[in-house]
Amino acid sequence: MRVLILGIDGYIGWPLALREITKGNTVAGVDSFFTRKRVKEVNSDSVTPIPSFPERLKRLKEKTGKTINFYRGDASDPKFIFDVIKKEKPEAIVHLAEQRSAPYSMLGLKQATDTMVKNIVSTLNLIYAVKEYVPDAHILKLGTMGEYGTPNVDIPEGFFEVEYNGRKDFLPFPKQAGSWYHWTKVHDSNNLMFANRVWKTRITDVMQGVVYGTRTKEIDETGLFTRFDIDEVWGTALNRFCSQAVIGVPLTPYGKGGQTRGFLSLEDSITCLDLALSNPPDHGEYRVFNQFDEHYSVMQLARMVKEVYERDFHEKAEIRSVPNPRVEAEEHYYNPAHVKLAELGYRRSRELQEETSIILKDLSSFKDRIENLKGVIYPRTFWKESPLN
Amino acid sequence: MRVLILGIDGYIGWPLALREITKGNTVAGVDSFFTRKRVKEVNSDSVTPIPSFPERLKRLKEKTGKTINFYRGDASDPKFIFDVIKKEKPEAIVHLAEQRSAPYSMLGLKQATDTMVKNIVSTLNLIYAVKEYVPDAHILKLGTMGEYGTPNVDIPEGFFEVEYNGRKDFLPFPKQAGSWYHWTKVHDSNNLMFANRVWKTRITDVMQGVVYGTRTKEIDETGLFTRFDIDEVWGTALNRFCSQAVIGVPLTPYGKGGQTRGFLSLEDSITCLDLALSNPPDHGEYRVFNQFDEHYSVMQLARMVKEVYERDFHEKAEIRSVPNPRVEAEEHYYNPAHVKLAELGYRRSRELQEETSIILKDLSSFKDRIENLKGVIYPRTFWKESPLN
Repeated sequence: MRVLILGIDGYIGWPLALREITKGNTVAGVDSFFTRKRVKEVNSDSVTPIPSFPERLKRLKEKTGKTINFYRGDASDPKFIFDVIKKEKPEAIVHLAEQRSAPYSMLGLKQATDTMVKNIVSTLNLIYAVKEYVPDAHILKLGTMGEYGTPNVDIPEGFFEVEYNGRKDFLPFPKQAGSWYHWTKVHDSNNLMFANRVWKTRITDVMQGVVYGTRTKEIDETGLFTRFDIDEVWGTALNRFCSQAVIGVPLTPYGKGGQTRGFLSLEDSITCLDLALSNPPDHGEYRVFNQFDEHYSVMQLARMVKEVYERDFHEKAEIRSVPNPRVEAEEHYYNPAHVKLAELGYRRSRELQEETSIILKDLSSFKDRIENLKGVIYPRTFWKESPLN
Repeated sequence: MRVLILGIDGYIGWPLALREITKGNTVAGVDSFFTRKRVKEVNSDSVTPIPSFPERLKRLKEKTGKTINFYRGDASDPKFIFDVIKKEKPEAIVHLAEQRSAPYSMLGLKQATDTMVKNIVSTLNLIYAVKEYVPDAHILKLGTMGEYGTPNVDIPEGFFEVEYNGRKDFLPFPKQAGSWYHWTKVHDSNNLMFANRVWKTRITDVMQGVVYGTRTKEIDETGLFTRFDIDEVWGTALNRFCSQAVIGVPLTPYGKGGQTRGFLSLEDSITCLDLALSNPPDHGEYRVFNQFDEHYSVMQLARMVKEVYERDFHEKAEIRSVPNPRVEAEEHYYNPAHVKLAELGYRRSRELQEETSIILKDLSSFKDRIENLKGVIYPRTFWKESPLN
């Protein structure tokens, strides 16, 4: 299979490329290095040292003998993306090339607009490029479980049966996202659903949970690490807690920590995306996967990290809540469905505690690098502020 | 009250300005003349002859003694819109400054992107400008009944009680729009709902039906007509049927004509917007109005126009379906609620037949201008095509 990965230099993009190339698929990739640049702008860095992309390709060649056709450019540039798709004629395109940070999108109007425009336009470009050059290709689009928000009812996988005033219909589940970033993913989902309706484009729209972890099978085999972010803008909860434990500073859930979300390990994320690629939607099908392994509250995860750290390292870890920069419910009902990937064969690769133990071990060899990021870990991007800039 | 109208040169904007100024409100306005320009580009024109905007203001001054602070510029330009709002400090802002044509948005990727970006960014700019300079101001935003699509259940006003797997919540009603243009309005609604959640912005989000008519009370009094579009890109159903009858060509519903939509007259649209302005939402409230008078199928309207024309003009009118350029259900259930504006005192000003009779009479004095538009009336913008351009 010819797979094109947009955003191949990212946390998910790179290990997905390793997986697909190891399986014998032909992989091409696109990246603008937007994340590298923006992470630097907030004085942060990946905890795992990652080489430049050309260097990544060189090492990949040394380790596996495989090559990747790489195109540097921005998926929101229509001409660029058309040229790539015309040339590569991919059978599947994984779209990971969007601005992926909720705090970044709330830094101010400039970043809100940048996120809104770039994310939406990149998906529009992709829709038109596929329709024109590879109408039967499978678009695998990364969305987020955060599109749903935290309704007081169960969350289905995309659609649900509505009974209202005595009549029934099968409708898209209402979305209630919590940041401009999350809303761009809702807008994308809506635009993809419409493209499918008009042009019968084959689409998998992935509502992914929060991903944690440093490793996949192929990272184990090649040593070619992916990036790992922990700062307040680009990092995420569990990865951040592990880093805090390793350098002996308090783990910092936001507010009460009752915020409950779907989580999954990097290995499981890659496995799910690969399952979606290996089992494409029918011709003309738009399908939605809720892609996470289990849901946990942020406080549960902090306590679990503390426990595993204290067990493995024989040192104390502390939990200390910080004021919540976001506008979100800190205690709520949460019960999202996730059966479709299990039906395709998805099984958890490791238990949460075991994965956490591996992350902590990996991170303990990057202590100095984490120490350097101390100043950018704590929340400074407050939703209510979001200035004009 | 100080009212700022974004899109003051448009079909709704101009008569709303006349209404507000006549009521003694202070009116300021913004327009980029985007619609005038784009209408010309498809070799079309307003059936009613409308003077340049400076000339409009001059005549307004002569007829009423009143003036309007006018700013020429694009609402998607943040600096421009900030300056206007900072200077005018409006108590209410009516946002009509969006690309408003579904066919235009489907002309190709360029127009899809243009519509998506301009519409979304203008609303984002407005949200931030209000939050910064006039946080208690009322944003009255024009959306469309087309946001809902045609679900097989009743359509509430924005939100509904969901019972799912034995639990209940009050959620936004799922949207299923039918063009990129309609989806931009959904995206705007979602973004406004989020702005209200984070910054407590006071918002009325108007889901408006299709507007028909040539007149309002103030147009009667001043003779200062608003524009009137009938071409395939910028025109709408009932107005187009009336024009076709007047020049003796067949009335052209698309496909089976069973497409059912909410409709209201221009006079009633202006009355509703004025009711929303006079009865602003509470502090921190986001409210949704379904703004239409009655729902009709396109075929019902074609038959009604035929009947009124034959009665008034003693000549035959013909109905002839043309292939539907859109991707939409041509027969479907449709039952949207519309009680909130009635609760504020909205009553229909005239019966549909009576309004149609007035439109036909007005248009009969512009027969030559309609004859000139013959070549641009029939659909040429097919949803399924929408090229790369």
